Amino acid sequence: MGDSECVFCAIVHRGAAASIIHEDDTALAFMDHRPVTPGHLLVIPKAHAVGLEDLDERAGAQVWLVAHRLGRALRRSGLRCEGVNLFLADGEAAFQEVFHVHLHVFPRFTGDSFRLDADWRLRDRGELDRSAEALRLGMSRLDC
Amino acid sequence: MGDSECVFCAIVHRGAAASIIHEDDTALAFMDHRPVTPGHLLVIPKAHAVGLEDLDERAGAQVWLVAHRLGRALRRSGLRCEGVNLFLADGEAAFQEVFHVHLHVFPRFTGDSFRLDADWRLRDRGELDRSAEALRLGMSRLDC
Ligand SMILES: [Zn+2]
Ligand SMILES: [Zn+2]
Repeated sequence: MGDSECVFCAIVHRGAAASIIHEDDTALAFMDHRPVTPGHLLVIPKAHAVGLEDLDERAGAQVWLVAHRLGRALRRSGLRCEGVNLFLADGEAAFQEVFHVHLHVFPRFTGDSFRLDADWRLRDRGELDRSAEALRLGMSRLDC
Repeated sequence: MGDSECVFCAIVHRGAAASIIHEDDTALAFMDHRPVTPGHLLVIPKAHAVGLEDLDERAGAQVWLVAHRLGRALRRSGLRCEGVNLFLADGEAAFQEVFHVHLHVFPRFTGDSFRLDADWRLRDRGELDRSAEALRLGMSRLDC
């Protein structure tokens, strides 16, 4: 069921090299070849899905479970790890670069190079309530 | 089972204000009051857990499922959303600020203020294979 142009499907089918950590019926975990920090890994569903929209919910739950365990495993791996980030990018505007869903798991330590920035501003309750209402509307439009 | 000092436990028990989107037996979703972009929300387990280490796996799976659906709901909410990021910080070194597990879900659009930076460098297969081996060792040390 792979997309013939998809590098992560190629890894699933062993048509491309990867340093694989874990495999089960649903999910595959392997090292990111451009790690934020040593130990940075990706967890993917083995069945091709571009993003959250076409990701099967059960497959997503298994991807999460593997990431949860590997996040804990990082702290037992001997690799430098004082904290862990999980990150998922859904869509090009969200910095997705490979269009097969993947959940990043990477170790963090004081002085590493990872940085986040945004225009964080406190918002008033009225604005937050309107956002919550918009989200409830969005939920009601889901087919699940 | 809340921690009396924990602001997210206070939200669960309605002792602190929040703009709540979703609640079920296990998980609660509400608006982040300092959003990266309008629509930025948090999904938490209702039972207090500091991080991945003490988070019950089934509770984690439910947090993920709610985040998955709310990520899709963002694109149907009318809020500006061309992409979605999911982000979790486990530990102070990973930028965790509230010590009750929370999964960030926020909409993205071209020209928003969110930025990531890191010293991404291609690593050779030998180094990646050694990291994968360390992670398999870490997995073998988990109690699950
Ligand atoms: Zn694929
Ligand atoms: Zn709490």
